[in-house]
Amino acid sequence: MAKTRSEVLSALLSADSVLVITHGKPDGDALGSAFGTRQFLRDNGKKADVLLTEPPPSRYTKLCTEYVGDDVDIDDYSMVLLLDCAVRDRLGTQKPIEKLLEHRCFWNIDHHYLNTDINAANSHVVESSSTCEIMTDILLDKPGNAITPDTAGFLLLGMMTDTGGFRFSNTKGKTLRTAAMLLDAGADMEKIANAIYFSKPLGQLELESDIVASRMKLEFDGRFAYACLDNELLAKHDFSMKEDEGLIDLLRSVDGVIIAMLVYERGGGYRVSLRSKDSKFPVFPIARHFGGGGHAQAAGAIIKSDIKDIIPQVLTLVEKTLNGEKVP
Amino acid sequence: MAKTRSEVLSALLSADSVLVITHGKPDGDALGSAFGTRQFLRDNGKKADVLLTEPPPSRYTKLCTEYVGDDVDIDDYSMVLLLDCAVRDRLGTQKPIEKLLEHRCFWNIDHHYLNTDINAANSHVVESSSTCEIMTDILLDKPGNAITPDTAGFLLLGMMTDTGGFRFSNTKGKTLRTAAMLLDAGADMEKIANAIYFSKPLGQLELESDIVASRMKLEFDGRFAYACLDNELLAKHDFSMKEDEGLIDLLRSVDGVIIAMLVYERGGGYRVSLRSKDSKFPVFPIARHFGGGGHAQAAGAIIKSDIKDIIPQVLTLVEKTLNGEKVP
Repeated sequence: MAKTRSEVLSALLSADSVLVITHGKPDGDALGSAFGTRQFLRDNGKKADVLLTEPPPSRYTKLCTEYVGDDVDIDDYSMVLLLDCAVRDRLGTQKPIEKLLEHRCFWNIDHHYLNTDINAANSHVVESSSTCEIMTDILLDKPGNAITPDTAGFLLLGMMTDTGGFRFSNTKGKTLRTAAMLLDAGADMEKIANAIYFSKPLGQLELESDIVASRMKLEFDGRFAYACLDNELLAKHDFSMKEDEGLIDLLRSVDGVIIAMLVYERGGGYRVSLRSKDSKFPVFPIARHFGGGGHAQAAGAIIKSDIKDIIPQVLTLVEKTLNGEKVP
Repeated sequence: MAKTRSEVLSALLSADSVLVITHGKPDGDALGSAFGTRQFLRDNGKKADVLLTEPPPSRYTKLCTEYVGDDVDIDDYSMVLLLDCAVRDRLGTQKPIEKLLEHRCFWNIDHHYLNTDINAANSHVVESSSTCEIMTDILLDKPGNAITPDTAGFLLLGMMTDTGGFRFSNTKGKTLRTAAMLLDAGADMEKIANAIYFSKPLGQLELESDIVASRMKLEFDGRFAYACLDNELLAKHDFSMKEDEGLIDLLRSVDGVIIAMLVYERGGGYRVSLRSKDSKFPVFPIARHFGGGGHAQAAGAIIKSDIKDIIPQVLTLVEKTLNGEKVP
């Protein structure tokens, strides 16, 4: 069932037309892998499109242009390629989900090692920093394989966002060597880095300033930093959490902080995002306690309860974690 | 006069005792290359010390411990190694400068291509992302060469700070492959990244919040962002500009901004720091106009004049630059 790199590459190169799909609320890795693969296919003379049911976050709108919506006719494509999506729920906003997943030539490529929910006959799921790293491995598997600077730029985008700009512990020697191949292929580092890191909407900068001045709280001798954002605060700075990719790093950046948490309204409840700077103090068990998930050091949950009840409950679990106790 | 990598390595390995020196107000590359080289020498059974005339910025104090001051007896060392310092002026705080530079076995290693001020017989100056990249090239020049995880960690530190965490345009494929060798050698990415990026003093975070709320100004349709910091503001947040390594990135991060400037008191005048996000709009000519220097996209000057006079003068030159005109 699991396919090798060269089997994936053969499938891509023998397809006539490919529809590339990814998870909802797409981040840099989802967009980079989707648009990079589309570029590669087009450069090889294929018809290829990316399906998005919502616009990309504003920082990516200049890079990720021209996509189709879910009114597209799936039968027009000889292959459907799902990238960077571990669970069906994250495809939720795309209307003809079953039709997409049951396409006669459906492929699934992902780096989430818990990708067990997408039961595809054609599957390439390996542990990696990012789906963009996997796609680079596939496209540049053999010496002599080539990609254009545009494709390389898209793949670099996702490698950078999913590794926190090569800062998180998922950055290995192999990760950097793969990114080096993308730079050698002509990826424009300045353009990509400016888009990701130096294109912050002014409203976000002002929101961050406001969070520090009025919302950030430190607990447990400064080892835990958190902030609760209500919709009123977000509206004041004209900021949507759809634009968020790293707001929590503001709290994580403080000296001495080990665990950081951001809480904001979502649906009728609250979305709780957790990060740990130290693998000895994982936040995954806290998220799981509330029915959520994620990775050891980056996890989250949606809690349908009053904010006044949520905070003390989370504080108790964070304290247990920081004391080295087990979270129930 | 210029020495090869293997000549440098031979010299290091044949020295009995080495005093490593670097520039004043040491940054990540100065500290990483100095302490990394010291570690390598000690691992090879040498006596080796780093001379610092001021403590490192607080984020590095846990990593860069135990150094000697300028009361050290230089004659106790068989070699003096200067790292990451292009001009004599930057060594200014080290009292016995002439004695250091005239040591019978003085070596100079640097990545500043304008390093012409240090006239050493034993010199290895090559263009590179960082002095740490050069030291890695030297120490791992041949297959079979080895360095310990601690040495690799120090060298990774400087490679990361001088490339803006592999984000600036000086990050090439070769840069990432060199950093990959350091990860392969056991450099602790989590520890290093936490020290550089996630150990911000709380006072700095509050200062940044205050700058956005009360000091940041945008001009020329949002293409220029700047802020003037007086000593009173810095004192309010218990922040010293000695701790600064990236405060200007706050202004650079805003969408649409091409040139960013930070101005703060220094001596009897003002230090003006300039950054450009686009190589088409270099800031070096502006800094040079005021008698300063630096690189095309990162430059600065010290201006002995009233702040009320400085700002309009700089604004005129920034506008010229953004209009594609030549700065006189």
